[in-house]
Amino acid sequence: MEQITSRDNKHIKEYSKLAVSKRYRDETSLFVIEGVKLLIETQKSGIYIEKIFVTQECIDKWNLTSEKFFQAPDIYLITKEISKKISLQDTPQGVYAVCRKLDKQLLTDTIYNNGNYLLLCDLQDSGNLGTMLRTAEAMGIDGVIISGGCDIYNMKVIRGSMGSLFRVPTLQIDNVIDFIKDMNFHKVKTYASVVADGQTVGDFKFENPAVLLIGNEGNGLSEEIICACSDRITIKMAGSTESLNAAMAACILMWEMTK
Amino acid sequence: MEQITSRDNKHIKEYSKLAVSKRYRDETSLFVIEGVKLLIETQKSGIYIEKIFVTQECIDKWNLTSEKFFQAPDIYLITKEISKKISLQDTPQGVYAVCRKLDKQLLTDTIYNNGNYLLLCDLQDSGNLGTMLRTAEAMGIDGVIISGGCDIYNMKVIRGSMGSLFRVPTLQIDNVIDFIKDMNFHKVKTYASVVADGQTVGDFKFENPAVLLIGNEGNGLSEEIICACSDRITIKMAGSTESLNAAMAACILMWEMTK
Repeated sequence: MEQITSRDNKHIKEYSKLAVSKRYRDETSLFVIEGVKLLIETQKSGIYIEKIFVTQECIDKWNLTSEKFFQAPDIYLITKEISKKISLQDTPQGVYAVCRKLDKQLLTDTIYNNGNYLLLCDLQDSGNLGTMLRTAEAMGIDGVIISGGCDIYNMKVIRGSMGSLFRVPTLQIDNVIDFIKDMNFHKVKTYASVVADGQTVGDFKFENPAVLLIGNEGNGLSEEIICACSDRITIKMAGSTESLNAAMAACILMWEMTK
Repeated sequence: MEQITSRDNKHIKEYSKLAVSKRYRDETSLFVIEGVKLLIETQKSGIYIEKIFVTQECIDKWNLTSEKFFQAPDIYLITKEISKKISLQDTPQGVYAVCRKLDKQLLTDTIYNNGNYLLLCDLQDSGNLGTMLRTAEAMGIDGVIISGGCDIYNMKVIRGSMGSLFRVPTLQIDNVIDFIKDMNFHKVKTYASVVADGQTVGDFKFENPAVLLIGNEGNGLSEEIICACSDRITIKMAGSTESLNAAMAACILMWEMTK
């Protein structure tokens, strides 16, 4: 196992850049993960791991043996200092990996035919995005489409999704309006979730194929997007809460859509 | 406005103790809040505020005028250093308050008659507990019963609930089994949510009055609790997610219970 003792090592620099830069992740089609549990989850999902960085302390503590954990062409032993420097956790476990994005792209042709899909517009909270991916998998949603907002390969999203990101097909789109028009043209229902004046969720049956649109935590969907959709739907609420948390609203809508 | 410049001031010490000690909160029936938004929310809810601590910078920045904000018998001007010391936030806004717990106790007699209630057993994550309280209010749940786990007057719970804690009636109980037996005796349905082998949620109608029991994030409800309940219910899931996040599961169950 090759040792790395300098923070200025090129592999360490590459890891740190991938951890913070969406642009660099997009350019290289790589992303990074941290921690024992996530490493196991990643390997189980058939993700190709290019490099692993691990401290001796981590190997000893978790009893990491080569056949179980180190299925990567390049494995580097790093110092505790480097581990501390590159970790995004309060208490680093000491294992890190550079992985190749899985080519698990959802094809629009698939959507035309059948299934229930989620379209997330400009989600800002990586925790929310991760939770929604996890919920989508649990509900049997056929794919998640993402437009703007935080990157799905952000480590917080990966952690929050508990690996669902590696299993649910995803599609990144640039222009939501064009996408909605294309769906409408192919007779795919597009349901915009709005806080008031939509059809009451629970009173109607979702059609299939369908795309459910969830907006940004603070502002919801834009007027332009709402107008482009074929349907508007609303969760009726009691009490004086302004609205449900975005992840909770998405959860109820996915539940109603797939049951 | 009286000034406090020493960290050892008795009021500052009391605040800090209330912020971290559940036992002290229980003994005194007091709790603390931090931040402008939460202070407004608290005042709106009719909570009695005993003391406010505020920095001059906070007064200037938020333009805090006495009629709007300072409805408390004792208001103290504190230094930035003290603010930084007592804050639990990364970027302190500089306003803190000591409040009296609202006597919004849910009575068991009320449950016998009518309504939908949530019973949370040993919830460990304060963020989850806050979210569930917020969701409970949005769904029109009539009261939340809490047994063990984190304190509802923990500041993270208060923040996460967005003030719902001040509006939804709550009841703290010591013995869940005795409580369930009492409910069963009074013909109140007790629904235990379990990961497998319960009645499928969506296939049956919840009866009324009813108490829905949600277990701990890691372990769910104990065997003893499950056996004591009148019914077992399960959310059927797709995919390979181990289970839904506790807050998501609670959300779907409350939705089905109240619709």
